Amino acid sequence: MAELLEKLCVVGLGLIGGSLAKASRSFGRARLIVGVDKDRDARKEAEKSLDEVTGELKRGVANADLVIVATPVMSIENIIENMRPYLKEGAIVSDVGSVKGPVVKAAERLLSSRNPFVGGHPIAGTERSGFSASFPELFSGRFCILTPTATTDETALDKVSRFWQGLGAKVACMDGETHDRIFAALSHLPHLVAYSLLNAVRELALGDEDILEYSGGGFRDFTRIGLSDPVMWRDIALMNSKFIMEMLDRFQRALNRLRNAVEIGDGGTLEADFRQAKALGARISKD
Amino acid sequence: MAELLEKLCVVGLGLIGGSLAKASRSFGRARLIVGVDKDRDARKEAEKSLDEVTGELKRGVANADLVIVATPVMSIENIIENMRPYLKEGAIVSDVGSVKGPVVKAAERLLSSRNPFVGGHPIAGTERSGFSASFPELFSGRFCILTPTATTDETALDKVSRFWQGLGAKVACMDGETHDRIFAALSHLPHLVAYSLLNAVRELALGDEDILEYSGGGFRDFTRIGLSDPVMWRDIALMNSKFIMEMLDRFQRALNRLRNAVEIGDGGTLEADFRQAKALGARISKD
Repeated sequence: MAELLEKLCVVGLGLIGGSLAKASRSFGRARLIVGVDKDRDARKEAEKSLDEVTGELKRGVANADLVIVATPVMSIENIIENMRPYLKEGAIVSDVGSVKGPVVKAAERLLSSRNPFVGGHPIAGTERSGFSASFPELFSGRFCILTPTATTDETALDKVSRFWQGLGAKVACMDGETHDRIFAALSHLPHLVAYSLLNAVRELALGDEDILEYSGGGFRDFTRIGLSDPVMWRDIALMNSKFIMEMLDRFQRALNRLRNAVEIGDGGTLEADFRQAKALGARISKD
Repeated sequence: MAELLEKLCVVGLGLIGGSLAKASRSFGRARLIVGVDKDRDARKEAEKSLDEVTGELKRGVANADLVIVATPVMSIENIIENMRPYLKEGAIVSDVGSVKGPVVKAAERLLSSRNPFVGGHPIAGTERSGFSASFPELFSGRFCILTPTATTDETALDKVSRFWQGLGAKVACMDGETHDRIFAALSHLPHLVAYSLLNAVRELALGDEDILEYSGGGFRDFTRIGLSDPVMWRDIALMNSKFIMEMLDRFQRALNRLRNAVEIGDGGTLEADFRQAKALGARISKD
């Protein structure tokens, strides 16, 4: 059973931050839930769902037991630096960034044992973004990855872990680099590929609008993830560039094999590669 | 109102052929529905749904008013050649191949005004294949593209068109080359890309099985089309190689832009490209 927090502060009221605040309310995880966002429209939207909404980080984090940063991943370091003077002693800081290695490193450099940090990443989202798209069940049955290091405070890790379980999530722990390598493969590369596919078809579609009527033949499957927030994905691409480049190389090798087979009419390679891919796809759909 | 056929023959009892036969029965489009398949298991499965199932092309097409070839696209030419001596005078021949230019050319070379040919391609399918996956509503509300040429018999085109409408499909006409260019973009390229993504992740997944647990982060969207039939897609890739190579080049340019931006840390290009892609994605999801 997760303990009740006196005050939870969520910084960044987008899809994830908003859902986090709503879930904490709906699952009764905090007595007071305060949201911080620098955007006035986001604050206005959030006002009726939260106990307090403010544009001031200082005010938002004051007296909070747990502060979760839910802003685009490039801004997390800066936000932690700015909030640091106003954190109460013992307040735990966490985040929901999609890249973990650099975030954890920066947070551990900025914070001390006075304010333990626990890196987090809930594997949840929809193609919509913003507070208006948020809902309390977003994390139910989904994984939340926590990325402790050798110096992570065990009690803080335990509290954050129970907090997420209290929202219905399954918690898994791994180090930040492993996280970044896995999600470069399973999330970041697919997004770059989907964006590229959309842009490749774009020139064609601009010339002849009607062709989009026929997008049911496979193309439509890619459009959902191509609707994700461009700023969020810009930050992810920049911050996880090392592992993304590695995965782009793997993808390029696989695509080049197919391209070459198409070019020289090598049906054997095409069929073998398709079969291999299908076998992995079948394993995934069974899960 | 589509007229009732005396005898319909469907050659190839997979997902599309099976659904075609079942839909013709369910929507009352033919008095006698006969299926041809060289595979004994497929025939056995189909027996209870059709009036007659045979392994002999000669027997199947005899006296049919309409013969629809629903086999992998590379085999269509050969099948038309083999059935030609047994077609009754005036019997219309059609197909459901995903590549149209070369099929239409071959069919027009093989057949004469005695047996008019109308190329067709229903934009329908699921990730499953085989007769057991077929169902009569597969074409309801979906497009069926017909690809007449300057020499196509108008009455035959009209009959085939009304036949598909009778199964609930929306009929659109275009020439075979246009069809092949559009579907290289909207269907064939996405399939090659999905297969390549699966194969790129495969090496990683083999080393550490657990990572597939986290496929909800974007990867899972690609797996559905990666489950498509490898032989069918081998044939499509080989037969539409010209337009597929063109689209691969477009995709490669779009991906290289992103790759380069990731490598040099060019956030402006990443965000601009993502926004552009998202705008197209949004137009498609509205449809």
